[in-house]
Amino acid sequence: MDELTQQHLQELRRGTVVLASLLTLRTPGYGYGLLESLAAAGIAVDGNTLYPLLRRLEKQGLLTSEWNTEDARPRKFYRTSAEGERLIDALLTDWHEIDAALGRLTDGGTR
Amino acid sequence: MDELTQQHLQELRRGTVVLASLLTLRTPGYGYGLLESLAAAGIAVDGNTLYPLLRRLEKQGLLTSEWNTEDARPRKFYRTSAEGERLIDALLTDWHEIDAALGRLTDGGTR
Repeated sequence: MDELTQQHLQELRRGTVVLASLLTLRTPGYGYGLLESLAAAGIAVDGNTLYPLLRRLEKQGLLTSEWNTEDARPRKFYRTSAEGERLIDALLTDWHEIDAALGRLTDGGTR
Repeated sequence: MDELTQQHLQELRRGTVVLASLLTLRTPGYGYGLLESLAAAGIAVDGNTLYPLLRRLEKQGLLTSEWNTEDARPRKFYRTSAEGERLIDALLTDWHEIDAALGRLTDGGTR
């Protein structure tokens, strides 16, 4: 796939990683577990993108975090907050509207 | 709606404007007409975003343009190129994959 296509695909995907992360972290989890869950669901994202994103979402109050200190190395696990749930609602509503709009445009273009 | 939500919505929408524009310009049109078609389809975008985007897509070879000099003031109209059609295919495929992934994550989260 050429670089131009890659770039446009990345732009299309970027906003959806936030939504997918908030949805997945309704069940509390670690960053690495989230990465695996997203990959399994078909959302390709790498750690260099995801981990800073999680810190940003936490700072924005959309995720809460706790440390699990039971293991030798403490690990942080995240959970979608009430504010995160509100953002999920807003983004899902918008997503479905865009999906419907694209559907209309696709029909129009192929008629 | 608060600023944070707005910002995330904008991120979600950004990549879709390219796809919606390429779909719409399968039927050649002016920038202003495109703006109206997108609004009618439910894709909110303003001219300050759309017009530079059209010039960028043209430079990338995804749109071709011609000048209509029949009116007093020449106007440029755009049309999706063969390369643009290939990008439409790639973006639509990706969009449907993301949509399916989000569907799976939504089901998982509300079970």
